[in-house]
Amino acid sequence: MAKDYKIPYMLDCYGSLLTKKQKCLVDQYYNDDLSLAEISESEGITRQGVRDAVKRAEAQLFETEEKLHFIEKTIMLKKAAMNIKASNLEFEQRKLLENLLNIIEEL
Amino acid sequence: MAKDYKIPYMLDCYGSLLTKKQKCLVDQYYNDDLSLAEISESEGITRQGVRDAVKRAEAQLFETEEKLHFIEKTIMLKKAAMNIKASNLEFEQRKLLENLLNIIEEL
Repeated sequence: MAKDYKIPYMLDCYGSLLTKKQKCLVDQYYNDDLSLAEISESEGITRQGVRDAVKRAEAQLFETEEKLHFIEKTIMLKKAAMNIKASNLEFEQRKLLENLLNIIEEL
Repeated sequence: MAKDYKIPYMLDCYGSLLTKKQKCLVDQYYNDDLSLAEISESEGITRQGVRDAVKRAEAQLFETEEKLHFIEKTIMLKKAAMNIKASNLEFEQRKLLENLLNIIEEL
């Protein structure tokens, strides 16, 4: 089972919509980088049980982002903010700020 | 049943997490400003049925905001953006922009 690099970020954003158990399993698998076998042993669930629970939670996280698009919007905001930070010119900076404000207004 | 002025905004933000039926009923009640009796007649559900469905959907919307706080964050962002727009001073504007960027970084 390949680890998806987007999951830790999704867990931060939408983890509170999962059950505590699901959140805890995904957290161990992704953030503590434990293997399914290690989680299985510490939690007293079969390896397959851990795998199924993590898979279900991942699907729910992706489904939530597909419905709400908050991560997509946040990435857009962060890029706009980074552009402002990286800019030096007064005029250019003003244009970028306008862009950021427009994005925020669309939220 | 008093109409809560926050619901239309919550419906925009989290409505896609409701069932289509729930979303449609809340939309008619809040955005089309129909009465429970009017929705009951057009949908062929009892008035009590409409009321229960709307109440359940409202509770779910509030619960989602309590878990995710996206509306709270969005309001914060919009206020910061409004402050930048309203400001004239170069130095003050820069401080406000820093504030906005900090908020975005915390997202």
